This record gives sequence, structure tokens and C-alpha cells, in this order.
Amino acid sequence: MDARRSYTVIGVGAIGGVYGSKLLAAGHPVRWVARSDADHLREHGLAVDLPEGRAHHHDLHVVGPGEPPPPSDVVLVCTKTTAGVAELVGEIAGPGTVVVAMQNGLGVEAPLAAAAPGASVLGGMCFICATKVGPGAVAHLDYGGVTLGEHTADGDPAGVTDAVTAVADDFAAAGIAVTREPDLARGRWRKLVWNIPYNGLSVVLDAGTDDLMADPDTRALVEALMREVVGASAACGHGLDEAIVPKLLADTEAMTPYAPSLKLDHDAGRPLELAAIYDAPLAAARAAGFAMPRTAALAAQLHFLDRRTR
Amino acid sequence: MDARRSYTVIGVGAIGGVYGSKLLAAGHPVRWVARSDADHLREHGLAVDLPEGRAHHHDLHVVGPGEPPPPSDVVLVCTKTTAGVAELVGEIAGPGTVVVAMQNGLGVEAPLAAAAPGASVLGGMCFICATKVGPGAVAHLDYGGVTLGEHTADGDPAGVTDAVTAVADDFAAAGIAVTREPDLARGRWRKLVWNIPYNGLSVVLDAGTDDLMADPDTRALVEALMREVVGASAACGHGLDEAIVPKLLADTEAMTPYAPSLKLDHDAGRPLELAAIYDAPLAAARAAGFAMPRTAALAAQLHFLDRRTR
Repeated sequence: MDARRSYTVIGVGAIGGVYGSKLLAAGHPVRWVARSDADHLREHGLAVDLPEGRAHHHDLHVVGPGEPPPPSDVVLVCTKTTAGVAELVGEIAGPGTVVVAMQNGLGVEAPLAAAAPGASVLGGMCFICATKVGPGAVAHLDYGGVTLGEHTADGDPAGVTDAVTAVADDFAAAGIAVTREPDLARGRWRKLVWNIPYNGLSVVLDAGTDDLMADPDTRALVEALMREVVGASAACGHGLDEAIVPKLLADTEAMTPYAPSLKLDHDAGRPLELAAIYDAPLAAARAAGFAMPRTAALAAQLHFLDRRTR
Repeated sequence: MDARRSYTVIGVGAIGGVYGSKLLAAGHPVRWVARSDADHLREHGLAVDLPEGRAHHHDLHVVGPGEPPPPSDVVLVCTKTTAGVAELVGEIAGPGTVVVAMQNGLGVEAPLAAAAPGASVLGGMCFICATKVGPGAVAHLDYGGVTLGEHTADGDPAGVTDAVTAVADDFAAAGIAVTREPDLARGRWRKLVWNIPYNGLSVVLDAGTDDLMADPDTRALVEALMREVVGASAACGHGLDEAIVPKLLADTEAMTPYAPSLKLDHDAGRPLELAAIYDAPLAAARAAGFAMPRTAALAAQLHFLDRRTR
């Protein structure tokens, strides 16, 4: 009997494709829950262009629309939002199942926890440049680390739980750089320090991260937005070290020019998912009495652009 | 001898065209200082489409590039910025000359006052929807009122001076709705309450005033920007009544959909004049210890877009 934990990957986009591919290559049973790409995946498999070469997986265990996924030890939720698949997750997650929300933003675990009350729900924050380039085809451009932490109903730190350790060990063995985060909310805020400025400004100004860093005014605005997020994290009881700001600025300057996912969505005319990255952090900060005027201004611009697209 | 004051209009764009046309029609001698349009104006005159019909003026007194303008009682500076024509104004303004800066923003009088130390320098704030549609052709769409106040070196209120009264009386007799402002700086801040949100957001979001007012998020952002400007005016010692905010919102909602001048410049690929409308107010507020985070964010976005265009 194979002792390796089984994984169900819901959503075969950039995130699901890259991490599912690595787990599969490491010998885990992986079930792929796909919608429009199910037939393509069955016929042609999944191709992942990695920095180190191409991985092409055939004979996938694909679960198409309307088909019941088998139970797995771990469910990686890799869809754009968690709310839309919470019911499905509730059906396949029993006691002892570990469910991982692989999205950005705040509040993404709550719908999963509500739908799967017996499961352990983790948040997985992916520091990765990857993009879906077609059906069953994903390009992994750079980075790839994942930070894992366990969700709690009240938002207090769970510590590094058994569920975090189990998934983190699997990820590490599959070659994924993994960080165990005892305070999931703090980890989520840390990720927002990057996502809030770069995602939004890249859409509003039709610019890449390199453009935003090369201009002194937008660079200063990125930094001011980052400091708002750091301030909000502290007001919400999950304070980050201010040193993250110069570090992220330097990291981004050193990074391959990159179009954040929100910009890819906007350029493709897709709806913008603003709830988790903008609305929830703004609401949390407001509830804590902390003002984020630049973030609120950027969010208002994004909602305007999104409504015009829809 | 004609007792009517003579006027020199520097810059025959929308503002110079509309107000010069009204003064000419009222019987004032008007000299037109033009650059690229000088020959066209001499040959074809100036056509102004007014809400009440078309005015077409022929046999204009046109002063072309390099030609010395004659002395006039009043010099209306109607170019996009004042700095570029300050030297010319200094040459033609003697003691007793009244020089009027017809631009938006803060700090536009200072270069004129420095170049013409013997003159009275006024600020003229135009509440007008007008646009230059071609050489010697201007369309006046709506509104048209002008607020006049006298510049002082220290920014303190000058009161309603003789110079303000003289020009205001001429404007009123020419059919221009005129307001005499004892505190020019307060008048300039009042105008910024409209200009800062609508000019900038219309450029960044490629939107008209009607679009910005119809969307709940941008409407709230417009209001928040307005409240920043009102707060800055108070911090700088020229406090406005908060009631101006709901009034301007309602006025703009009732207004014909309108593309602010900054948007027209951006759409035409022209440089954006951000110094007077954004940089100077931000610097004044900063010197007074007042934060304008939303305005600063918008200004940074505009500088980014402007640099990309240049």
C-alpha cells in the first residue's frame, strides 16, 4: 500500500497545474477536478513548462463536471475564488481531510471551513510567477514557494499544526520551497503587502512591475501602499515587521518583469476578483479603526474598471 | 478718446478665445498674442461657437511670434502655464498694468509677479466648459463665470482691490458672470476642490464626469478627494466651507457630461500640466502638516502616465 497522501486538485489553472504536477512527479496520487478542460486533459494530458524544462503528464485521473471526485487525504482548492467550490469541497471532505485554500487575500478559508466542518482548513500562499497559457498548458516562470498555515474560526494563530506539518512535508519532498506559518492571518497580510500595490496599479496604469519600479512617483506610491498594509496588519493584531517593505521593493526590482494575475485577467476582459485582495482587507482595517486611504482609492478605481468590463 | 480699457490676450486657446471675444464685442481694444495660429487669425479671424450662437471676429489686432505687443491696460495670460510667458509679460507690463493669470491651480501668479514687479497681478478662475476645436476656432459649451482676486506676495487676502474692481467691472459689462474674491488663495483652493478629483480621475480611468458620478465607488472617491482639498485649504489658512462638497457633487451630476481639460490633453498625447493643480497644492499642504494621501496617489499615477507619454 502506498503511504503517500492522495491529493485532489480543484481547478487546473497556473497554481493547480504547477503544484499538482510536482506532487504527481513525487509519487502522490493526484485527482484533477476540471471543468472546461476535462476532455483536453484526458486526451492530451498536462504540460508544465518549468524553469528547468518541460514536464508532460499523461493518463491523468481527471474528474469532469458533474462527476463525483473520490475522497482524498488533501484537497488543494486552486480555483480563482473559494466560495464557488465550497459546496463541492464539503461533499468530498470528511473528518481528517485537509483542505488548502491556495488563493490570495483575506477571508478565502471561511467558506471552505463552513462547508467542511470536520476538515482541517489551511491557507496556502503561493509566491510564484506562473500563468496558464492554454488548455492543459501551464508556464511556470519564476519562484514557486508556498507558505502554509492553519485557519482558525477567530483568526487567532493556530501554531504549526499536524495538518500544516503533513502538507508541508509533502510539498518539501516534492521540491517545493515551503514555509510553515504559525499565524495564518499574519501570513495572509504579508502576501497582501505585495499584492495590493502591484496587482492594482498594474491594472489601472497598464504597467508591469518593472515600469512601476522604474518611475519615481509610482515607486513611492507602491511603498506608501505597502506601508498602509503593514500598518493595517498591526491594527488587526497580526503585525508585520516594517523591514518587509524595503525587502519586497528590492525583490521586485530584481525580479523578471511581470504582469500580476489581476492584470492578466483585466487584459483578457475577465472579471476582477477584488473581494479577497481589496475589499476584505479594507473592511478588516476599518473594523480595527485603521485608515487605508491609498488602498481604498485604488480599490475604488479597480471596481470602476471592473464594472465597465463586466 | 475711447475710455474703455485695452486688453492684451496672450494665448488664443479656449479661455483666451472666449473671454477675448466677449471683451472685443463689448468694445474694448483687444490685442491677440498668438504663436502658431497668428497667420490663420489674421486671415480668417476668430470664430467662437457660443451657447447662444456663433461670433466671428475679423480684422483682429494679431501680434505674432517675435513681434512686440503694444502696451495695454490689462494683460490676460491665457496660456497653459504662466512660467513660459513671464518674460514677455514683464516686457509689456508697466506700472499700473493689470496682469491676470487665467490658469487653474496654485502658484500661477508668482512667476508673473516676479517678472512684472510694477504691475497688479490678479488670478482669474474660469468656471467654464470650452474647448479649442481648431486654429482660430473655439467652442464655448457651458458656464463661463470668472472669479477674480488679487495676488499678494505672502498669500494673505488682498481684499477687493481697485484692480479687481476695474477688471471685474469690464467683465461684467461684457456679459461675463464675475465674482470678486477678497482672498485669492481661498478662491484657488475652491477651484481645486473640483479640479483635483475630476481632472485626474478622468485621465487615469479614461472616463467622463458622468461616468465617475454614476459609479458608487468613484463617486465616493471623488468626494473623499474633495474633502482632502477642503481640509488642506483650512490647514493652509484659507479654509473653505465643507458645504462646497455636496454642492459640487450635485452641480457635476447636473452638468452636461464633460471631459476635463487634462483628459483632452492626455487623449491628444500632449504633456500634462500637473505642477499647478497637483504638485503645488500637495507641497502647500505638506508644508502645513496636512496629509493628502488620495491626492498624492492620484498625482503619482498622473506623473507616471505623463512620463510615458512624453
